[in-house]
Amino acid sequence: MHSIDFHAHHSPQGAYATFTCGRFGVGGGPTIEGTQPASMDLIVGYADGGTEDVHALPFFRGAGIADFSDFAMDAATPPRNRRLLLKDPERNYQRSVDTWTAGDFSFAIYTPVTPLPDPDRLGEAALAPALLPAVSARLTLTNSSTVARRLVFAITVGRPCRLADGVPGAKALAWGTDMGIAARDVPGLEAWVAFSELEYLTSNRSHLLGKTCGFALEVPPGETRSLELSFGFCRSGVVTTGLECRYFYTRFYPTLASVLAAGIEQHARLRALAEAQASELEQRIADEHQRFLLAHAERSYWGNTQLLEHAGRPLWVVLEGEYAMINTLDLSVDMAFYEARHNPWTLRNLLDQFAQRHSYVDRLNRPASSARGLELGHVRDPELVKDLILPPEASQLPGGISFTHDMGVAGQFSPAGTSSYEIAGVVGCFSFMTAEQLVNWILIAATYVLVSADEAWLGRKLPLLQDCLASLQNRDHPQPARRNGLVSHDSMRCAGTFEITTYDSLDSSLGQARNSLYLASKTWAAWHALRLLFERAGQAELARSASNSASLLERTLVDWYDPELGYLPALREGCPSAILSAVEGLCFPLFWGQRELLDPAGAQGPFLAQLERHLRAVLAPGRCLFPDGGWKLSSTSDNSWPSKIFICQHVAERVFGLRPDSKSHAAHASWQQLGCADWAMTDQCFAGVGKGSKYYPRGVTSWLWLEARDSAT
Amino acid sequence: MHSIDFHAHHSPQGAYATFTCGRFGVGGGPTIEGTQPASMDLIVGYADGGTEDVHALPFFRGAGIADFSDFAMDAATPPRNRRLLLKDPERNYQRSVDTWTAGDFSFAIYTPVTPLPDPDRLGEAALAPALLPAVSARLTLTNSSTVARRLVFAITVGRPCRLADGVPGAKALAWGTDMGIAARDVPGLEAWVAFSELEYLTSNRSHLLGKTCGFALEVPPGETRSLELSFGFCRSGVVTTGLECRYFYTRFYPTLASVLAAGIEQHARLRALAEAQASELEQRIADEHQRFLLAHAERSYWGNTQLLEHAGRPLWVVLEGEYAMINTLDLSVDMAFYEARHNPWTLRNLLDQFAQRHSYVDRLNRPASSARGLELGHVRDPELVKDLILPPEASQLPGGISFTHDMGVAGQFSPAGTSSYEIAGVVGCFSFMTAEQLVNWILIAATYVLVSADEAWLGRKLPLLQDCLASLQNRDHPQPARRNGLVSHDSMRCAGTFEITTYDSLDSSLGQARNSLYLASKTWAAWHALRLLFERAGQAELARSASNSASLLERTLVDWYDPELGYLPALREGCPSAILSAVEGLCFPLFWGQRELLDPAGAQGPFLAQLERHLRAVLAPGRCLFPDGGWKLSSTSDNSWPSKIFICQHVAERVFGLRPDSKSHAAHASWQQLGCADWAMTDQCFAGVGKGSKYYPRGVTSWLWLEARDSAT
Repeated sequence: MHSIDFHAHHSPQGAYATFTCGRFGVGGGPTIEGTQPASMDLIVGYADGGTEDVHALPFFRGAGIADFSDFAMDAATPPRNRRLLLKDPERNYQRSVDTWTAGDFSFAIYTPVTPLPDPDRLGEAALAPALLPAVSARLTLTNSSTVARRLVFAITVGRPCRLADGVPGAKALAWGTDMGIAARDVPGLEAWVAFSELEYLTSNRSHLLGKTCGFALEVPPGETRSLELSFGFCRSGVVTTGLECRYFYTRFYPTLASVLAAGIEQHARLRALAEAQASELEQRIADEHQRFLLAHAERSYWGNTQLLEHAGRPLWVVLEGEYAMINTLDLSVDMAFYEARHNPWTLRNLLDQFAQRHSYVDRLNRPASSARGLELGHVRDPELVKDLILPPEASQLPGGISFTHDMGVAGQFSPAGTSSYEIAGVVGCFSFMTAEQLVNWILIAATYVLVSADEAWLGRKLPLLQDCLASLQNRDHPQPARRNGLVSHDSMRCAGTFEITTYDSLDSSLGQARNSLYLASKTWAAWHALRLLFERAGQAELARSASNSASLLERTLVDWYDPELGYLPALREGCPSAILSAVEGLCFPLFWGQRELLDPAGAQGPFLAQLERHLRAVLAPGRCLFPDGGWKLSSTSDNSWPSKIFICQHVAERVFGLRPDSKSHAAHASWQQLGCADWAMTDQCFAGVGKGSKYYPRGVTSWLWLEARDSAT
Repeated sequence: MHSIDFHAHHSPQGAYATFTCGRFGVGGGPTIEGTQPASMDLIVGYADGGTEDVHALPFFRGAGIADFSDFAMDAATPPRNRRLLLKDPERNYQRSVDTWTAGDFSFAIYTPVTPLPDPDRLGEAALAPALLPAVSARLTLTNSSTVARRLVFAITVGRPCRLADGVPGAKALAWGTDMGIAARDVPGLEAWVAFSELEYLTSNRSHLLGKTCGFALEVPPGETRSLELSFGFCRSGVVTTGLECRYFYTRFYPTLASVLAAGIEQHARLRALAEAQASELEQRIADEHQRFLLAHAERSYWGNTQLLEHAGRPLWVVLEGEYAMINTLDLSVDMAFYEARHNPWTLRNLLDQFAQRHSYVDRLNRPASSARGLELGHVRDPELVKDLILPPEASQLPGGISFTHDMGVAGQFSPAGTSSYEIAGVVGCFSFMTAEQLVNWILIAATYVLVSADEAWLGRKLPLLQDCLASLQNRDHPQPARRNGLVSHDSMRCAGTFEITTYDSLDSSLGQARNSLYLASKTWAAWHALRLLFERAGQAELARSASNSASLLERTLVDWYDPELGYLPALREGCPSAILSAVEGLCFPLFWGQRELLDPAGAQGPFLAQLERHLRAVLAPGRCLFPDGGWKLSSTSDNSWPSKIFICQHVAERVFGLRPDSKSHAAHASWQQLGCADWAMTDQCFAGVGKGSKYYPRGVTSWLWLEARDSAT
C-alpha cells in the first residue's frame, strides 16, 4: 500500500447506500443516495477504565493533523477524558473485508458480494438475501491492561438520534426514518445518544437531544470481546420521479427494524462469506496492487447500484458516482463485463429499459469537409457556438434509432426519449453521443446474449437489432457504395454541432465521435456483434450485411496508419495524438470467446497487426505512459481514466501478449490511495490526481483480469 | 424599520415548511422540517433585453458586500451578462404580505393566516383550504425602457432540478419528491433548469444537469406584467418515528403536482386574503414596531407548525425552532393565547396527547434547607454534580402526575412518559421541569375550557384535573398544614438535583423552580385555574381546596417583599435579582376575562398591590430596562426573551395601567431586525443580539396586544 489513508465505499447491493470511511481526520459514515462521502465524526476504538480516555482509529475529525500524540478535547463536555490516536494502525484492504488493526484492537467491515439471482427465472423472492440493505462490521479488543476497557463505536450524525427498539437480539440506534445501527446484544453492551462520546463515557447516560450516538462494550482485563455491528438502510415509499419507483428491498425488509434484525441475524454468515471472498482473491491474484484495484473498484460499483421496483417489476440502475446520472449507457457498456459474470439479467433489464423508454430516431447531418471538432474546445454559449460551426454539407439524411446517454439524474427520470446530459447546440461536453450509445447498446446486447444464451430475448429483439444495423450503417453513409465502416455523420439532435464520445472531458484526441479511432475500435466490435447475433438467429442476410461493414472498417483501419507518426492518429483527420483506446473494441470478442476474430492468422490478421503495431508504438514514455509507469489514454492529455486503462491493459495482455508491468499496477493503485484519497474510486485522474468522476462505479473493468485465460461464454 | 435586511419565515400552516428569505447576500429558499434558513442562491428581479444583465433584489449570494454597483459574474457561464443590484430597495413588512419594491419592480410574498377549523366539530375535510402546503408570491415589472425585459425568478437548489408536468394552467419546476414551484402560465412564460440563471438567459435552453431552476416572463416595453408563483411542499409517507405519522395535508393534496395546482388555482384568493389581513392590522395597531413584531412572530409561529395524522386522527405539533423539539409544553402554554383565538381545538389536541402519552407520576425529595440551586451554574458531569449537591432532607414523598417537557425531537417521538430534553442528575439546563409543566398543563386546560366552553371535555378530564390538584399540592407540601402555596419540592426524577423552569438558560434568578417568584406567579394562576374548572364542573369541594392553595400563595407573596431591595427578590431565599416575570401569571385571568381576580379592591387586592409595587420598582434602568429602552427579564442577566417580555408588557398595561412606551417596541423590533437578522424570529436575545432560540415560534405572545380591552371569553 502506498497509503492506508483513503476513503472506501462499504455498501450493500442495490441499495444506493454506503458506509464510507477510511480517510484520516475527516470522519465518514452512512448515506443513502449520497454523491459524496459523509463527514460525520467517527470514533472507533476503546476507552480506558477510569480516565475514559478514548484510543481511536484516525478517522475522527482533526485526527489527520501532524501531532498524533494527544489530540482532541471535546468542547461540549468537561475535559475529563481525551481522544488519543491508536498507534501505528495497519489496514488490510481486501476484497469484501477492510480490516484495521492497532495493537490489541481491530475493526473490520464486511461487504461480501453475492450475484443477484435472475428474478424472471428464479422468482423475485430469490433476490432477498443478496439485497439485504445492511453492512456488517466488528470491533475486537484483547484487553491486556489491568483495568476494564470499553470498546467504543460512536458517530456524530449531526441530527438528533434515538435508541430504537424492535430489533430482536440487538440494541439499536437510529436517526430519521431510514438509517440506523444495530449491535448484537451481549453482556456489557451499552447503546446511547449523547452530545459526544466523551460525554457519554463519563456520564453513562443517554440524552436524546444529542446528535452523537454509539455503542460501548465492556472488555474485562485479560479478556477478548467483539462488538458486532450492522449498519442498516431502509428508505421506503416512492424515491424517484418521472418514473415512480421504490427500493426493491422494501419488499423483503419493509422497515428499518427489519433490516437491522436481519443484519444482526446474518452477521456471522456475511462475515464468513466476506472472509472467504478475501482469501479467494488472495489466491487468485498475486499482485497486491491489482488486488487493491479489484477490491476498491468493486466496492464503489456496488455503492452506486440501485435495484428499484417500478410498476411491480425490478428496474436496475447504476448511478454515475458524484454526477448521479441514472444508467449512463457509456458506463454500462464497460461495466457489462462485470455484470455478465455476476448477474447477466441486469444487462437484459437495462437493455429493455433503453429500448422501451430511452431510445429515439434521428436524422443526420453530413458535416462540411472542413468542419472542425473538439479542437474548438468546450463551448456552451450559443452566440459563440454560432460563430464556430460551419453549415453542413447535407442535412435531413436518414439516420435511425439510437439510445440516450442516460435515463435522468439524481432520482429524476428524464422524459421518455431524452437524457439529462445531452443538449443541442454545444461544442464538446454535453453534446449528443448518438453513435457511441448505439454502439454501446449493441455491444451490451451481444454480451448479454452470448453469455446468457437467452435466445427468446434475442428473438424478441430482432426487429430492434435490425433497426440498429440500419441506423449504424446510415451513420457511416446512407449510400452503401460510399461506406467505410466508420461513423461519419452527426445527429441532427446536435443542432449543427458534432457528436462526442464517453471521453467528453478529454481533448480532441478522444472527445469527438466522427473519425474517432476510439469509436472505430468499438464500432468494429459492434459490426461483429450484430453479425454474431444475426447468425445466431438464423438471419444470414443481415449477418452478411453487418459482416460487410466490419470488413470495410477493417480495411479503413489498415489504411489509418501514419508512417510519419509511426502509429494510428487519434482522429482520421486532424488530430495526431497517440491514444490507447484504439484497442478497446478488441475486448468484446475476447470476452465473448470469439477467438477467431483475434487470430493473427485469420481474416482479421492485417487489422490486428495494425493495432498491435500501434499499441507497441504508443506504449512509450512521452506518449501513453506517465513517468510513474501509469498508463496514459492520450499523449496530449493528462486526464487518464483507470476504468478504460484496465480494458486496454486486458487487451494488450490477452490479445497481443503485452503484459502490463507491475509498476503500472502500483502506479494506478497509488493514484487511488494518494491522488484520490478523499472520494473512494475515482475515474478521472489528472496525472494521478482525481479531479472528476469521483465516487465512481466504472472501475470494475479491472475484473477483466479475472477472466479465464481461455475465455469462453 | 431599523433595517430591511433580515430573514423571515414565509410559511403555509401545519406543513412545517417555509420559504425563508430577506437577508442580504445569503440567499434563502424553501425547506421542509428545516431548523435553519436555506441558503440557496436566490435571484429575484428582471433581465434587460440584449445584454441580459440581471437586476435583482439583494438576496443573491454575495450581494451583501459593500460595492453594490456591479457585482457578480458567474464562473459557470461566459461573462456576457451580469448581476446588478436593484437600487434603493424598499420593504413593506406587513402581516401576511412581505413586499419589496425597487423602481418599477416589485416582489411580494403572501402568507395569509386562516384559523384551522375544528375537525371534530366541522369534519376533517374542513381543514383542506387552511392546510394547503403552498406559499404564493408575485413579481411585477412595469417596463419603462425601450427594449423587452424579462422578469426573472431563479433559485440554486444545489441538486439537479426538473421541469415538472401535471400542473394545469401552470409551468412547474421541482426537485426531489417533495418541493417545487409553479408559475401561472401566461404568454411569454419560460420555465427552465440550468447551471445558473445567467447561463439560461443567454442560451434560452434548459439543461437537466443544472442545479439552478427558474422562470422568466417577457415584459414588452411600456407594459406591466406579473409573474405569479406558488412554492409547493408535499412530503408523503411516514415522516416521524416513535409514533408513525404522516402530514395531514396529504389527505387533501396527495402529490406535489396537486399542491402546485391548488397553489396556482387559489393564488388570487390567497393574495386578496393576505392583503386584507395586512390592511386590517394597519388599522388596528398604530405603532409600526408593534405591527412588525406581530407579523414577524406570527410568521415564525406558523413556520414551526405541523398538523400530522396518527392512526387516522389529527395530531397537532408545534416544533421548537432551531431545537426542533416536539410540542415543548412550556412554549405551548405561552402560545395558547394565540391558538385559543385562532383554533382552540389544537389546545385540546395537545392536552390529550400529553395526558395519554407524555404524563408520568413521580415521588418527591424535600431538599436540605441549605441546598443550593442554579447559582451553581450548569453542570452535566456526574462526578462534578456529586460534589455539588446535598442529600435531601426527606425522600420518597408522595408526588403525583406531571407532564414531560416535550414529546421528542426532530421527528422522533420519545418513548411514552419521557421527553427528549430532560435527564437525571444534572444541575441546571436539561434537568426536569416537573412542577412547571404540571402548572402549564393546568393553565392550558383552563384556557381551552374557558375559551371553548367544551364542558364535555372538562367532564372527561375531571379525574385527571383532580390528580393535577393533588400533585401540585404535594409539591407544595404533603401535609396540608405546612403548605404555603408554592412549589417547594423537587421531583425524584432529578436524581438528587433540582427542578428548573422554562428559563433554563438564564441565571439563578429565573432558572430554578423551587422558591421561584416566576413560578409562584404561574402557580397562583394554576390554583385559580383549577378552582374555576372545578366550580364549572360543580365540584365545590375540589374548588375550595384549590382556592385555599391560591390564598396561601397570595399570603406568601405578600410576605415576599424585601424592604431593603424595594421589590420581591427572584427567589424566596438566596437570589436578590429583580425580575419582570413576577407578573406573568396575571396574564391568565386577564385572558380568561376573570376581572374580579385582578380587582385591586377585591380579595386579591394586597397580592396585586404587592406585584404592582414590585413591577414599578424593577421597571427602571439598571434593573429591568436595557439602555435602549428594551425590557430586561432579569436584572442579573443580559439574556432577555421577547416572547416573555410581551406577556409582561401586556400585564403591565392591562392590569396595572403601566403602558409600555413606544421606545420599548422600537428596541424589541431592532433586536429582531438587526441583532437576529440571520434567523427570522429569535427568542433569546443577549442585550439585543440573538444567541439562542432561533427560528422560534413563541413570539406570538405579542398577539396579546390585540386582545379586546374588555376581554371576555
